[in-house]
Amino acid sequence: MSVIEGLKEIVGAGHVLTGADTEKYGSDWMGRYIAEPIAVVRPGSTEQVSRVMALAHDQGIKIVPIGGNTGLTGATYAEGAVMLSLERLNKIREIRADARLGIVEAGVILSNLHDAAEAHGLVFPLTFGARGSAMIGGALSTNAGGSNVVRYGSTRGLCLGLEVVLADGRVMDLMSQVHKDNTGYDLKDLFIGGEGTLGVITAAVVKLFPKPQAYATAMIATPGVPEALRLLNRLQAETGGAVEAFEFMAGSYIENHLRIIEGAKPPFEKSYDVNIMLEVAATSPRDAAPAEDGSIPVVERLEQTLADLMEEGAILDAVLAKTEEQRRAIWKRREDAAEVGRGEGRKIGTDICVPTDKVAVFLERMEAALPRLDPGATDSWVCHLGDGNLHYAVFPATDSPETDNAIVEHIEGEVLELGGSFSAEHGVGLMKKASMARRKDPVALDVMRKLKAALDPNGVLNPGKVLPD
Amino acid sequence: MSVIEGLKEIVGAGHVLTGADTEKYGSDWMGRYIAEPIAVVRPGSTEQVSRVMALAHDQGIKIVPIGGNTGLTGATYAEGAVMLSLERLNKIREIRADARLGIVEAGVILSNLHDAAEAHGLVFPLTFGARGSAMIGGALSTNAGGSNVVRYGSTRGLCLGLEVVLADGRVMDLMSQVHKDNTGYDLKDLFIGGEGTLGVITAAVVKLFPKPQAYATAMIATPGVPEALRLLNRLQAETGGAVEAFEFMAGSYIENHLRIIEGAKPPFEKSYDVNIMLEVAATSPRDAAPAEDGSIPVVERLEQTLADLMEEGAILDAVLAKTEEQRRAIWKRREDAAEVGRGEGRKIGTDICVPTDKVAVFLERMEAALPRLDPGATDSWVCHLGDGNLHYAVFPATDSPETDNAIVEHIEGEVLELGGSFSAEHGVGLMKKASMARRKDPVALDVMRKLKAALDPNGVLNPGKVLPD
Repeated sequence: MSVIEGLKEIVGAGHVLTGADTEKYGSDWMGRYIAEPIAVVRPGSTEQVSRVMALAHDQGIKIVPIGGNTGLTGATYAEGAVMLSLERLNKIREIRADARLGIVEAGVILSNLHDAAEAHGLVFPLTFGARGSAMIGGALSTNAGGSNVVRYGSTRGLCLGLEVVLADGRVMDLMSQVHKDNTGYDLKDLFIGGEGTLGVITAAVVKLFPKPQAYATAMIATPGVPEALRLLNRLQAETGGAVEAFEFMAGSYIENHLRIIEGAKPPFEKSYDVNIMLEVAATSPRDAAPAEDGSIPVVERLEQTLADLMEEGAILDAVLAKTEEQRRAIWKRREDAAEVGRGEGRKIGTDICVPTDKVAVFLERMEAALPRLDPGATDSWVCHLGDGNLHYAVFPATDSPETDNAIVEHIEGEVLELGGSFSAEHGVGLMKKASMARRKDPVALDVMRKLKAALDPNGVLNPGKVLPD
Repeated sequence: MSVIEGLKEIVGAGHVLTGADTEKYGSDWMGRYIAEPIAVVRPGSTEQVSRVMALAHDQGIKIVPIGGNTGLTGATYAEGAVMLSLERLNKIREIRADARLGIVEAGVILSNLHDAAEAHGLVFPLTFGARGSAMIGGALSTNAGGSNVVRYGSTRGLCLGLEVVLADGRVMDLMSQVHKDNTGYDLKDLFIGGEGTLGVITAAVVKLFPKPQAYATAMIATPGVPEALRLLNRLQAETGGAVEAFEFMAGSYIENHLRIIEGAKPPFEKSYDVNIMLEVAATSPRDAAPAEDGSIPVVERLEQTLADLMEEGAILDAVLAKTEEQRRAIWKRREDAAEVGRGEGRKIGTDICVPTDKVAVFLERMEAALPRLDPGATDSWVCHLGDGNLHYAVFPATDSPETDNAIVEHIEGEVLELGGSFSAEHGVGLMKKASMARRKDPVALDVMRKLKAALDPNGVLNPGKVLPD
């Protein structure tokens, strides 16, 4: 029996796609990684995933799991492989409001989970631009980040339990619903961020949080990055950790935004180098309910803090959103980053992270190094300053792979020296494999290879991803 | 050269203890696991730890890592083994207040780290009774919990990076200082909670948080557990997640406390079944600074909330701490749990966790089952209701190992059915190995064994712990 026939027997003929039907799966959404998979198989249950993997394991068929296909690193490139789409495992099994948890299948679209939580007055905080197509299984597999890690922690911390189908088809039940589980090694976190190379996530238990009742949202300009960081730390103490976003946009990003995005408006009358978008949330009625004069306490308080800071000279300018429309406009400037990126021309993009107190150091060092590396090159960035994750981009003046490489290597070197990571929230996939080879501790790389060999001895799961050759 | 000579050559003769000098290491503090180790070796650097492990790996010497020796599950039992004490790796390398992080060696005593953070107006939140002797390396190795996981998350989430010496002596650098690190598989979390069976933690990067400026602390009684959980969820929303402790004590615990602890006072004039100790913290000057009449805003607000709830009938009684002395007395009642336990006579203790909305279900089921399992047996508990971690204890009427086993098995069965864990914050060690064999998913157990074989092929690291034989 052929592979295709075997797959059809498991999931039904209608759920094994071949030829042109595989196109929308075979290419990533940025059009950077384009492959022709042998087939796309769409199992309808964990049991079917298990049987698909058992077949693949026995016959040495390469399997590439895929969720919403919104990844950025080529982690679902599937030339010569069968793609295993989780899209039909799309049930939200339970929302348990009292326990602040949800039990979901891997193919649930992120925004559907958001809606389901909201119906209970709760939020599932993990969110990013692609939330309308990204699936929870893919978000977990790539340990996807976002702008509110500063408030709610990493994706890993938002997940209590997992169901995983191993390379050989066995189903592993790690569906713990509790906040404290010390029953042996932490297997869950190997699969979160494992990018489908160690197992296929089929379901998860996720944490939910009280839904904010009001937001205070502002754009501010500070004299430098250290002042911005001190403001963040001050706000964290003042609000008891209620800072939901603290996003730093370079002056050059603001310029590019104005040039590229139709209808874009400047955040301030003057131009500044350090532009911060910040948002504080209030979950308590006391902080969120409008006063008699219509003012919202959480907004009033932020306004007062910003006024004090203006007086101290710690901030140069500030604009507070007074309406939901103004808030949306502030967010849009930041969320336009992908579109701005596409309009900026040839660039070297990154997804790096440095300790929050080293963001300024990193940028200073790059300012000094760039003219040496590539005279005439310019740079720009947006940065989740709350967690140190910096999407730093260089626009080379020279059109040479050698120069590009020298720039990338220099960035990586600085990041490593500052205690940071060369891959923060997008993962490794194919794109960062060279960086893994160059920059990851060799002992750690060796341990990763041993884990891969132990969990996927036949090498069927998403081969060629994450680990350098 | 003998093993002892080899060890002396690495760390110096004065740091290899034998005979009577090993006694305080060989016995756990509860006196339940008593062994005679071959020697205790006390390396003074990561490099020395590395050389000790290389020697052990080559010669097949069993190594049992030990920190402050405050564990509860026999995880450092070391008969026929060399104990590797991390106590000399006791430097706090850095506290970086702006980045809210600390870099510490494994032998740093938890309360020393607390003090160092406090000097910067920060806290390292992980804390428990043994904080004056427990070391950070041991706390990480056992993924220790405590009462403020409800606020700050698990130990795993408090650690950004690790340095680990592997079984073969290689040093693995995972000392990431950042909140987003997607550079390959999450190795760090294998060693956190690995109980020294996969590697030896020698240093860590930990997260720090703003130090609370004031606390509102209260004892309350609710009609039932569901009402207590609703109060917790309401307080979480009202305070933006500032609940630092939410501890549920059974009526029987209060009775035992009064009987066993000298000078103990009842929390209320009347007796109740559901007694809750709760604490809300304020990090903002606005919430913490005394008003003109001396009242503290965070305390006033809690008082108002509790008064409202009394009126609604959602709580039956409430006592608010008005002084630090009263606050200490409320905390002491809960922290006396270990001493109360020692005075209660023969008991079956547990460290289980169920989803917060299943705590009431679990207790109801045990109330129904206990008379069948052992007529005349009684029970008691303290419970971190904020995270579902329940130290449920049965006082058997029958003195029979079979009855004890039947009770333990019944408890485990209920916990499993409710989506919980049979080991929450103390770990597995030797004590919970039988439960691992009975209750852990067999596929997960097999994967754990594969990881152990991949990371410690010669079986030198803390043999016989965590994994059932």
